[in-house]
Amino acid sequence: MATSESPKVGIIMGSQSDWPVMKEAARLLGELGVAYEARIVSAHRTPDRLVSYAKDAKGRGLKVIIAGAGGAAHLPGMTASMTPLPVLGVPVQSKTLSGLDSLLSIVQMPRGVPVGTLAIGEAGAVNAGIMAASIVALEDDSVAAKLDAYRQAQTDGVGETPEG
Amino acid sequence: MATSESPKVGIIMGSQSDWPVMKEAARLLGELGVAYEARIVSAHRTPDRLVSYAKDAKGRGLKVIIAGAGGAAHLPGMTASMTPLPVLGVPVQSKTLSGLDSLLSIVQMPRGVPVGTLAIGEAGAVNAGIMAASIVALEDDSVAAKLDAYRQAQTDGVGETPEG
Amino acid sequence: MATSESPKVGIIMGSQSDWPVMKEAARLLGELGVAYEARIVSAHRTPDRLVSYAKDAKGRGLKVIIAGAGGAAHLPGMTASMTPLPVLGVPVQSKTLSGLDSLLSIVQMPRGVPVGTLAIGEAGAVNAGIMAASIVALEDDSVAAKLDAYRQAQTDGVGETPEG
Amino acid sequence: MATSESPKVGIIMGSQSDWPVMKEAARLLGELGVAYEARIVSAHRTPDRLVSYAKDAKGRGLKVIIAGAGGAAHLPGMTASMTPLPVLGVPVQSKTLSGLDSLLSIVQMPRGVPVGTLAIGEAGAVNAGIMAASIVALEDDSVAAKLDAYRQAQTDGVGETPEG
Amino acid sequence: MATSESPKVGIIMGSQSDWPVMKEAARLLGELGVAYEARIVSAHRTPDRLVSYAKDAKGRGLKVIIAGAGGAAHLPGMTASMTPLPVLGVPVQSKTLSGLDSLLSIVQMPRGVPVGTLAIGEAGAVNAGIMAASIVALEDDSVAAKLDAYRQAQTDGVGETPEG
Amino acid sequence: MATSESPKVGIIMGSQSDWPVMKEAARLLGELGVAYEARIVSAHRTPDRLVSYAKDAKGRGLKVIIAGAGGAAHLPGMTASMTPLPVLGVPVQSKTLSGLDSLLSIVQMPRGVPVGTLAIGEAGAVNAGIMAASIVALEDDSVAAKLDAYRQAQTDGVGETPEG
Amino acid sequence: MATSESPKVGIIMGSQSDWPVMKEAARLLGELGVAYEARIVSAHRTPDRLVSYAKDAKGRGLKVIIAGAGGAAHLPGMTASMTPLPVLGVPVQSKTLSGLDSLLSIVQMPRGVPVGTLAIGEAGAVNAGIMAASIVALEDDSVAAKLDAYRQAQTDGVGETPEG
Amino acid sequence: MATSESPKVGIIMGSQSDWPVMKEAARLLGELGVAYEARIVSAHRTPDRLVSYAKDAKGRGLKVIIAGAGGAAHLPGMTASMTPLPVLGVPVQSKTLSGLDSLLSIVQMPRGVPVGTLAIGEAGAVNAGIMAASIVALEDDSVAAKLDAYRQAQTDGVGETPEG
Repeated sequence: MATSESPKVGIIMGSQSDWPVMKEAARLLGELGVAYEARIVSAHRTPDRLVSYAKDAKGRGLKVIIAGAGGAAHLPGMTASMTPLPVLGVPVQSKTLSGLDSLLSIVQMPRGVPVGTLAIGEAGAVNAGIMAASIVALEDDSVAAKLDAYRQAQTDGVGETPEG
Repeated sequence: MATSESPKVGIIMGSQSDWPVMKEAARLLGELGVAYEARIVSAHRTPDRLVSYAKDAKGRGLKVIIAGAGGAAHLPGMTASMTPLPVLGVPVQSKTLSGLDSLLSIVQMPRGVPVGTLAIGEAGAVNAGIMAASIVALEDDSVAAKLDAYRQAQTDGVGETPEG
Repeated sequence: MATSESPKVGIIMGSQSDWPVMKEAARLLGELGVAYEARIVSAHRTPDRLVSYAKDAKGRGLKVIIAGAGGAAHLPGMTASMTPLPVLGVPVQSKTLSGLDSLLSIVQMPRGVPVGTLAIGEAGAVNAGIMAASIVALEDDSVAAKLDAYRQAQTDGVGETPEG
Repeated sequence: MATSESPKVGIIMGSQSDWPVMKEAARLLGELGVAYEARIVSAHRTPDRLVSYAKDAKGRGLKVIIAGAGGAAHLPGMTASMTPLPVLGVPVQSKTLSGLDSLLSIVQMPRGVPVGTLAIGEAGAVNAGIMAASIVALEDDSVAAKLDAYRQAQTDGVGETPEG
Repeated sequence: MATSESPKVGIIMGSQSDWPVMKEAARLLGELGVAYEARIVSAHRTPDRLVSYAKDAKGRGLKVIIAGAGGAAHLPGMTASMTPLPVLGVPVQSKTLSGLDSLLSIVQMPRGVPVGTLAIGEAGAVNAGIMAASIVALEDDSVAAKLDAYRQAQTDGVGETPEG
Repeated sequence: MATSESPKVGIIMGSQSDWPVMKEAARLLGELGVAYEARIVSAHRTPDRLVSYAKDAKGRGLKVIIAGAGGAAHLPGMTASMTPLPVLGVPVQSKTLSGLDSLLSIVQMPRGVPVGTLAIGEAGAVNAGIMAASIVALEDDSVAAKLDAYRQAQTDGVGETPEG
Repeated sequence: MATSESPKVGIIMGSQSDWPVMKEAARLLGELGVAYEARIVSAHRTPDRLVSYAKDAKGRGLKVIIAGAGGAAHLPGMTASMTPLPVLGVPVQSKTLSGLDSLLSIVQMPRGVPVGTLAIGEAGAVNAGIMAASIVALEDDSVAAKLDAYRQAQTDGVGETPEG
Repeated sequence: MATSESPKVGIIMGSQSDWPVMKEAARLLGELGVAYEARIVSAHRTPDRLVSYAKDAKGRGLKVIIAGAGGAAHLPGMTASMTPLPVLGVPVQSKTLSGLDSLLSIVQMPRGVPVGTLAIGEAGAVNAGIMAASIVALEDDSVAAKLDAYRQAQTDGVGETPEG
């Protein structure tokens, strides 16, 4: 679950069960030509791994971290507390409260430690991939060109009249 | 902010601004004869302190940890991820969403890492103190007696008819 | 639905229909070596049974009560009003409001009578079992060891990279 | 806080602090000529008083019970579990969640034990008084006449055009 | 959809689609020996029928009206505005917002015009039937006896230990 | 509270207390040159007035009705049930639930009877006035011109850079 | 997806996936004899198309625009910012938050730019069609007659007693 | 409201009334040595300005856009629809719904057009400033150093024990 190049974006998630959602972020990064890695890092079950991952991220050359989690979702915010890198959060839809708990747990960070939060669920994972690419694109013309093309294709793909 | 005896209960909170709420827990523990300590431990601004506090808690003789925080409140859950001690969470009322964000961030923990969550705000802080005492009381007859007396006084203090 | 040893933890629930959720608490207690009993005690349909159960609990040697209920869930709080033992509440997911009603009915207790509330649904039942064990473990080294092993296994069970 | 006649309606509330809201119910009953009594009965702090009050209510000649409480409001539902009389519930506005917790704790009763729930706060207390009177009025022409007059005056009191 | 005797309780609902829920109220009334009638009265599609039904209800000998509706549920409140009889409201679960809209539209009546609101969905319909019976029972010993028996059977029907 | 010309828009509200909000609609209509009238019509306290007002509206030459109400706000929907005219609804902010109850009671109308709902509170009242004017403007060039000017002035009134 | 006559109502939606809901608006307009067109206009993916559509709408002879979208639904409000025509908004039910996000994104417009918002989902689409027809009917007797007939048929179609 | 250097970050907001919140973003950028500009750009009142601002932003050398708005907050998402730059959204607390409407309108963007959303209100504005700086810092060592210092000072500023 990683591109061969040295990864620019780290995708982390609280559990294997978040992967069906979070792999949308990976798919987008692949499509936009951004090297990434994907790891399971549970804030609650593997706190030491979380500390290492967050503290080492910048030194390992990552530029952006995408973190997805559900329920009392602490992974994005705790990662942000231990790295100066921009952290994007994806609220994974929870079984009981439709992801409202995930959303509030991620977005309502106190002043001083930001998490840029995307929509609940797959749309959010897709968008985390795009946003990470837009950050990388600031200094990478190849990614910028791919992002422009992606956006143009997206615009072109909207039909004029509804069908069916 | 600690009793002289070796503390049995650790009260931690994310910020000085949580203290007006959280000191209600301290007040109750004092009243019920349970030695405690109170510390500021910010999950987001002092993650290293959080790790140390949580990992050392049991070895230092603590029996219960009470953690209060607001908004995207990660302190109780992250503490619970690094100690086998029972952790009680107090959702501090947030400015914008009345503490619903604090509540969901604390209570909706994933399977495997529990936080016993109390009510939002002062009532929750009072009750965290009482519940910590009830745990200590399981093996401490003096605390048990004080808890029984507190409960009896509380019952006796309810007037028969409303006034005014 | 009880271990042969004298039970340390009482699991009660408002109805047979809560059992598929609440048996997760029983399963965890079994796994962690804590003797328990499970009873149906409906606050609304069997109020006398509730009074007896709550008032007799401490005298019968119970250390912790886990109470699960849904909707206007009064069982945990009413139990807590009649016993000095620590009471843990599990909000069972309701049909109409996804358990938000259950959660608020359990967690928002007034000052003086605490219920340590866990997450909505199965995750909460699992965690109530773990938390009850963590309380028992304070004075029972065998349970403490099993709890440590459980937590370690849980940490070890988290894969490094997502699959699929 | 009671009329001299043998009371037909019992107004109970969880705490003295609920009285400023609940006395609106008393005021209406007075206005509509229905004998009532008002008592503080805390489900959580005086559970024995709750049991006595609810079990004795019918025998003492009460026809309707109005119960007001806030937060995890268990008083109306627990009363309904121990009396065949109709029970009306008034959700008192809570400090943190504006009474949404009170409302859900009262109205979401499981099948078998009804509580007729009114609006949150003062409007609900007024309306509980009116509704109790409308039940008493079914067999009391004097109350029925007063209720009709009250309703007519209410209609007459609505101005034609807004002013100011 | 009516008992042969002159009905004491009128069950009205906004649409045929509410009947699967509302017939639970009818079933209970049948079981408790209370004569009832069931009618479709749409506040929005048949406002004239609503006016007639509400204004004639008392004269026709009805004692209680049970009104069920979903979404922007105006039937219970509008009925209450045109009859002095006690009106019970059942929020029918809506497709999009799980009945929260139905609940708030019914329960949040302004001061002066009460609707005694039951739980969302089937539990609320069952309970509306029971509550209507409890009102009728105030002056009908036969219904009172059946209600007592129903409540006793309900209590007796609660098993001691969970199974499965 | 009416312009001298024969009114094109009727502004109705449930109570005098809604006027401070609803007069914003009147102010806008005055500003945009649309004749209007303002009336208090309480769905719950003056149901007969509601029936007359709604049924007579079209015959009296009204083109649009603006209805404002709070809590269990039935006025807009019930008006819409008795007139073929377009009805605009303004949810007045409620004391307890911030107008969420008002909003859902107005907007969630069942299929067949629409209410075009505006924002909660003053912004909604202003916008109801503008929207009513935009409907009148479809066949009234003078109003159309005033509306265009209003919109242009609004655009021109937005400063370039924030101050302070 | 358009009637042959010059369209009076424009139905726009953010995506093909909104069509199963929005075609209910089209169906109603067809039934009520109002010429319409249906277009996909994505605020986020085709912002230029949105600008053109909104700015040209009045000049092209449209009288009303119906805009449907889900999630962070910006289409109705942005359209309203660029046309003086009345704009009706339909919140399409979202996957994660049941359309509450769609509803609030559409209805809570700031003062100055109104969107008349209908119910979430199909009921709202049906009602947007009816409301647009009611606006067109103000100056079109044929549509007015069809609308009256539709409303009468709707009333006549309500059965007297529930079945099943 | 701009630094003299060519701005790297554009702060836009829907209205002058958002500035007391949004200037916290400006303050942080100033503190972290990031050149910025601040502009009022109303999505609804100045849609043309929005189009120009968003489309020109990249060409003018901006790297990140911070957009704040309240209620039906369309500014961040619409900006994101017209620029490939990363867009950060700040939900400004609304008068009626505490900013929940603002939050959902900003964060719930459909797949393809991301907005990295921060907390409601001032904390979110502060954090938008920090996050924008963290993006700029990826290629600017001076900003990176200032950000590290800011974070360290923040950590150092957390007292050990609560006071008062």
